[in-house]
Amino acid sequence: MADVPVDSVASVPVAIVGAGPAGLMLAHLLGRAGVEAVAVDTRTRREIETTQRAGILEADVVRDLVETGVSDRVLRDGAEHEGIEVRSAGLPHRIDFKELVGASTWLYPQTDVFADLADARERDGGTVHFGIRGTEVLDAATDAPRVRYTAPDGTRHELRARYVVGADGSRSMCRDLVPEDHRVRYGTEYPFAWFGILAEAPASAPELVYARSAHGFALISRRTESVQRMYFQCAPDESAAAWSDDRIWETLQARVAGEDGFRLEEGPITEKTVLRFRSFVQEPMRWGSLLLAGDAAHTVPPTGARGLNLALHDVKVLADVLPRALGGAGGSALAEYEPRALQRVWRAQNFSYWMTRLLHTAPGASAFDLRRQAGELDNVVGTRAGRTYLAEQYTGWPTPTR
Amino acid sequence: MADVPVDSVASVPVAIVGAGPAGLMLAHLLGRAGVEAVAVDTRTRREIETTQRAGILEADVVRDLVETGVSDRVLRDGAEHEGIEVRSAGLPHRIDFKELVGASTWLYPQTDVFADLADARERDGGTVHFGIRGTEVLDAATDAPRVRYTAPDGTRHELRARYVVGADGSRSMCRDLVPEDHRVRYGTEYPFAWFGILAEAPASAPELVYARSAHGFALISRRTESVQRMYFQCAPDESAAAWSDDRIWETLQARVAGEDGFRLEEGPITEKTVLRFRSFVQEPMRWGSLLLAGDAAHTVPPTGARGLNLALHDVKVLADVLPRALGGAGGSALAEYEPRALQRVWRAQNFSYWMTRLLHTAPGASAFDLRRQAGELDNVVGTRAGRTYLAEQYTGWPTPTR
Repeated sequence: MADVPVDSVASVPVAIVGAGPAGLMLAHLLGRAGVEAVAVDTRTRREIETTQRAGILEADVVRDLVETGVSDRVLRDGAEHEGIEVRSAGLPHRIDFKELVGASTWLYPQTDVFADLADARERDGGTVHFGIRGTEVLDAATDAPRVRYTAPDGTRHELRARYVVGADGSRSMCRDLVPEDHRVRYGTEYPFAWFGILAEAPASAPELVYARSAHGFALISRRTESVQRMYFQCAPDESAAAWSDDRIWETLQARVAGEDGFRLEEGPITEKTVLRFRSFVQEPMRWGSLLLAGDAAHTVPPTGARGLNLALHDVKVLADVLPRALGGAGGSALAEYEPRALQRVWRAQNFSYWMTRLLHTAPGASAFDLRRQAGELDNVVGTRAGRTYLAEQYTGWPTPTR
Repeated sequence: MADVPVDSVASVPVAIVGAGPAGLMLAHLLGRAGVEAVAVDTRTRREIETTQRAGILEADVVRDLVETGVSDRVLRDGAEHEGIEVRSAGLPHRIDFKELVGASTWLYPQTDVFADLADARERDGGTVHFGIRGTEVLDAATDAPRVRYTAPDGTRHELRARYVVGADGSRSMCRDLVPEDHRVRYGTEYPFAWFGILAEAPASAPELVYARSAHGFALISRRTESVQRMYFQCAPDESAAAWSDDRIWETLQARVAGEDGFRLEEGPITEKTVLRFRSFVQEPMRWGSLLLAGDAAHTVPPTGARGLNLALHDVKVLADVLPRALGGAGGSALAEYEPRALQRVWRAQNFSYWMTRLLHTAPGASAFDLRRQAGELDNVVGTRAGRTYLAEQYTGWPTPTR
């Protein structure tokens, strides 16, 4: 395959497979460090921009977006949330992040993060090829890896890079390049999924509401002032089309109902989807000249809002390591990547698993487990130590300095 | 049966079935409140005193023993521990209770707590009948419950009480008095047990050491200055007799070994036992005039050292409720018992389960679970929020005031 002729060959220090938020943020940060990077993605820019994705950003991520010059739009269009509400057995409990750990989160959709980054790449003259196909990564294990792809016009191109970053998401092909006998894939499935809706309605609460009820989990989030994002626990094989709006509202209302008379503001439902999720990690995150980042290397359940933040943490470490590796430190700088990224990966894996298990009702759970779970949630929301334990993990751990 | 003649009949406001630490502490506290209580136990005093039991007391329990006049021996013979050491992947991590939550624990064997309480009962003229047999509780659901028993001399006696407290431990017969269709039993078994030894050796560490290793869990505790208590995770059906001293030391040393060169002080092993455990709760904790307390109503794995402390919390609530119930408040005072006791019961159930799961290696655990567990422990010992979350649960929650 390496001998098939291509229409163009270009050299670049870093080739990035995947131009979602992780890939583009890496290209942006490398650009600031004087390292050129080219990103390619099989999706068109429009495809990425119209995929609705949740967005809870750590304050550190917001600061990085602003301070590294991506955009300050997040400060204008995003909303700072200084806490969440956890509803348990019909009672509301506020987890006050600001007061507990001096941190906050920002509600800002992932698609907006992407749009800001794509705009910044254009503004800064960075090269991004959207809508490509036939991506191949060759010689990943060597010092001269290459990325080949077919442009929308049908021409075939080759990027000769020193390093290739696989930031190609949860269906990553890059991770398959690590040979089977050199990789381990860790994971677990969950016996439930999320039924997600977009509804044209005013916000029901000023912050996100996580509800554990006898009927199962629900999450009340927001897309904009007038469009709300809500989820409720359902069976993994549930069919979204089978649910009437009435039945959806009835289900959601029952899960958040409580002694305080809390009710959701209802409105026309414009989207219904069933979202399945799993916990997944592939190790190693580096194979020769290939480095995996974000969902390509690890995915988490959405419960703790860790996914995008964790991907951007990988990228931040890479943006520190790669310029040094290219500047002569080579393998010794590169060797820092995995240990620095993995500590947070496994903390976040545990947090996402824990928060999922804490709030969902597992089919077939024993009576002991349900009571113990209620005792756990009582300890988490009912003590300052418990609230702080949750808050620090939800808002992201302070980034360790080297 | 109620018509069978007895050799004596006595009336007492409260009859207590079980004269272990929970039963005797209740009798003691009731005595201080001017309420007479008679306790009976099938074991002799000597039998109870020679059963080796661990003993980590919450500071609140120590304060209660001293301030209510049981004895101040705990302050002389006990040892205040201001923290524990958690060893993970060969690295030691101190959990500094005093600094984190302003609390501490005391190392003082349960048998000594018992001896102090039994002495205090004698000193205060309280009635305790040890070594009885044929215990029967009659008419528990009515306002006139009775306890019948056969004294060591073969004579049969009846206590006519207003309330009967079942403090008869993990093999409680009192809990069976709640009719099957009116009770729920919650529980879970664990796929491992503890292999416990007593060794004649100096202490290896100033505080308790909890170790998670690839080989499984170990706990290094202390009985006295010269006798050490140690445990390691084993199969539930392990035979203690099958283990040579050499093999035991090898196993323990491997589980605590680490980069700091930590080694256990070895010495002759004088006792070997396999300790199985489970999580268990029976509800309700009250049935008519019968009240269940301590192990009779709930047992926990020993990992979090909650068992005795939790039993003494039940007793403290009872000692507040019963005098008011007898003083005329009746059922309304009594109705406070279960909700006040149960909140702590389920928090402690969860804590004991969580700490057990966090530190043991479950047979058949998936690779994901093992890595996630390591990530969880890293977050618990590696962050102040995590250490505080553990410390508050380990040292006992502040007792809510009414």
